[in-house]
Amino acid sequence: MAGKITKLLIANRGEIAVRIIRAARDLGIRTVQVVSTVDHDMLAARLADEVIEIGPAPAPQSYLNMDRILAAAVESGADAIHPGYGFLSESGEFARRVEDMGLIFCGPDGDTIERMGDKVNARRAAMAANVPVVPGSEGRVAGLEAAIAVAEEIGYPVMVKAAAGGGGRGIRVAQNREELEKTIPAAMTEARAGFGDDGLYIEAFIPRARHIEVQILADGNSAVHLFERECSLQRRRQKVWEEAPAAMLPADIREELCASAVRLAEQVGYRGAGTLEYLYDIDRKAFYFIEMNTRIQVEHPVTEMITGVDLLREMILIAGGSPLSFTQEQIQCRGHAIEVRLNAEDPARNFFPAPGVVETLKVPGGPGVRFDTGIYEGYGIPPYYDSLLGKLIVWDMTRERALDRLAGALSELAIDPGPTTVSLHSALVRNPDVRAGDVSTNWLEDWLEDGSKIELVPKSA
Amino acid sequence: MAGKITKLLIANRGEIAVRIIRAARDLGIRTVQVVSTVDHDMLAARLADEVIEIGPAPAPQSYLNMDRILAAAVESGADAIHPGYGFLSESGEFARRVEDMGLIFCGPDGDTIERMGDKVNARRAAMAANVPVVPGSEGRVAGLEAAIAVAEEIGYPVMVKAAAGGGGRGIRVAQNREELEKTIPAAMTEARAGFGDDGLYIEAFIPRARHIEVQILADGNSAVHLFERECSLQRRRQKVWEEAPAAMLPADIREELCASAVRLAEQVGYRGAGTLEYLYDIDRKAFYFIEMNTRIQVEHPVTEMITGVDLLREMILIAGGSPLSFTQEQIQCRGHAIEVRLNAEDPARNFFPAPGVVETLKVPGGPGVRFDTGIYEGYGIPPYYDSLLGKLIVWDMTRERALDRLAGALSELAIDPGPTTVSLHSALVRNPDVRAGDVSTNWLEDWLEDGSKIELVPKSA
Repeated sequence: MAGKITKLLIANRGEIAVRIIRAARDLGIRTVQVVSTVDHDMLAARLADEVIEIGPAPAPQSYLNMDRILAAAVESGADAIHPGYGFLSESGEFARRVEDMGLIFCGPDGDTIERMGDKVNARRAAMAANVPVVPGSEGRVAGLEAAIAVAEEIGYPVMVKAAAGGGGRGIRVAQNREELEKTIPAAMTEARAGFGDDGLYIEAFIPRARHIEVQILADGNSAVHLFERECSLQRRRQKVWEEAPAAMLPADIREELCASAVRLAEQVGYRGAGTLEYLYDIDRKAFYFIEMNTRIQVEHPVTEMITGVDLLREMILIAGGSPLSFTQEQIQCRGHAIEVRLNAEDPARNFFPAPGVVETLKVPGGPGVRFDTGIYEGYGIPPYYDSLLGKLIVWDMTRERALDRLAGALSELAIDPGPTTVSLHSALVRNPDVRAGDVSTNWLEDWLEDGSKIELVPKSA
Repeated sequence: MAGKITKLLIANRGEIAVRIIRAARDLGIRTVQVVSTVDHDMLAARLADEVIEIGPAPAPQSYLNMDRILAAAVESGADAIHPGYGFLSESGEFARRVEDMGLIFCGPDGDTIERMGDKVNARRAAMAANVPVVPGSEGRVAGLEAAIAVAEEIGYPVMVKAAAGGGGRGIRVAQNREELEKTIPAAMTEARAGFGDDGLYIEAFIPRARHIEVQILADGNSAVHLFERECSLQRRRQKVWEEAPAAMLPADIREELCASAVRLAEQVGYRGAGTLEYLYDIDRKAFYFIEMNTRIQVEHPVTEMITGVDLLREMILIAGGSPLSFTQEQIQCRGHAIEVRLNAEDPARNFFPAPGVVETLKVPGGPGVRFDTGIYEGYGIPPYYDSLLGKLIVWDMTRERALDRLAGALSELAIDPGPTTVSLHSALVRNPDVRAGDVSTNWLEDWLEDGSKIELVPKSA
């Protein structure tokens, strides 16, 4: 049923490892869970058929250690490896090494990972597939005159970005030509001082954007989309709340957007599950491709809830050599889903990590409620990894109903002693802007600046 | 949003009480849970906004005690009562008393409950709505000649049933006229001796039948169906495994069946959620109405999984005065769902009840997996009530996938120390007849006669 795969090694941990094990198990595939020395007690290790220790807690010595993981695959006789998200999931080298050993990598080939993982290459591929990208200079601008020429062409406001910057550093905004004339020399000076390189890019500035992304599945020959997700509620570029579909997107734009994702995936001969991320300019009503994730994403369950498609199962089937098991027409969107990320962090103390032992775990249930987690009562969260405890996902016929269901489910959820981001989400689900869907990628950070908006005492206390 | 209802009293216990509380809570309705003296610790009591003790453990003193329940409604200021299933859910008198106090009963009015709860009346209503019923004598047959006349009309084999019998007692089968001539005098003698009444009915005998039922919702003006369920796997007339839709039903018959249910519901001006139960004659490919349940049923989640409709929410909305919130065309069936009932019973010891403390509860999760329960780790199951611990419900795109998912979920489920019917379902899900859907209402009892077919040691031991 799963092609050539009979035993799958999971090169990851936490909730996604559990998710992969369940998908493999339901396909009749045996599972091998690799663990660091501190992860023997995690839920995935309890559910897997076999467990192999691969090294100490720090990720470079275990979950990022290709040699150890590949040795575990040989030792266990696994014929395939699933990388999950994070860790080695976007390492072209790892994918190549897996395949060089005659094993199956659950994802695209190494070259595709590298090509689409590079933002400049991905942007070029998008343009070749006639997928809109954020308007801007193609590479560095030669100087002020060239910068003005680009800005006049794409229209103000524009962003001036240091070519050697990154992570939001070295960015200035110019509202008009006058501001640009002042900004360019200052930005060059600053870039030279800050990064040792005065090269600058010009890009259209999008003051109010939504983060929209399209889930695709492809078998190397053809691709299908599974509609889009909206993930505009972010903190420090980390998504904290995701929805499917993007309820506020005009229908015609949504259709174009999804079609563009299929075009790009087919253009690069993509194989596996992937996500194309876009910015949607709220004012101009236009979308721009920004990057591609060549792996499963944390927020994949909202897509599963609206389409009924088990994305992990499809990934495994495709990796095992099966063609896509459905056509585009067979994938229907029903209702609305919301996922909230539950982290062992204290929203009242600037999201300071708060690992510890989970003494009480009360999980909500009922129709349209799903809880994906790698923890259980009595489990001690190790301090070495990201703070994701689990994901609460709800579905209902409409977005408003889904919000009501989320509020109810959150009121029932207890992860104690905490603190956790349950308190953040309990506040967000009642917020008028969130309920109206009237948010952009800046909204959450702006809102968080007034710390009093979050209850300082977790509801379960 | 829920019309006139602001506070709902739940006149039930166990998993269905939890289910009702969640539906009410998501509608913004406050909840009052009545409990017997032994039920203060049940999950529903922990989730409700208010808890009122109504009497000692034996049901006649608490969950069947109308005076106590109505007094609790007055005391708490509840404006509506939901009866769940069992207990007072099909008492026309209770429904009338609730309404006479100016409160809302979440179900049809008392007269409808009584009319449709009486099998003879329900059969008449069905015939008036042109819904097929099992062919047979209208009431008692006057004697042998009359019996032969009926049998010749409906065709052999026929069942001879004692009018005063019930629960499967006093039933004989005649394959032809010769057998009938011998059977009638013997049956009359036996009925007189056994029940003090020699009255007999004649009914068509259906050797291989499926139990199929149609879920309907109605607002007093119009009715819609939410497709059908198949519940052929029964033991002592108790359902143990339910599916939606009925995968083996021919499409044209399915359409007729669902249309007949809507016709009957509209004919009696039905209001609320209801289920019309039918026998499907596998050999003759014909369905016959047998009875109506004027309440929510244990197996309602499979319908929720394929339609996305929250049946408890709709019941509450309709009771609050709302019209149906969708048309027939808006209700779509997607995929396939299976529910297995998990009971505190020992399948290896003739399903002997096994209450006790739940020391370990491991609940499966992931896409398409739902677990409705009223228990939790550390909960002591009282010995006074039915043995239902919870219901594992799975959904997937096809029946075969749903079976695989069920097998996986069952392998992960642990309710210890047990015993429970988890072991029964773990055997059933691997059974070739069950997997092929090749079962009738006799199948499970026939299969159980060979006790060796069930693992005597629960898998979790």
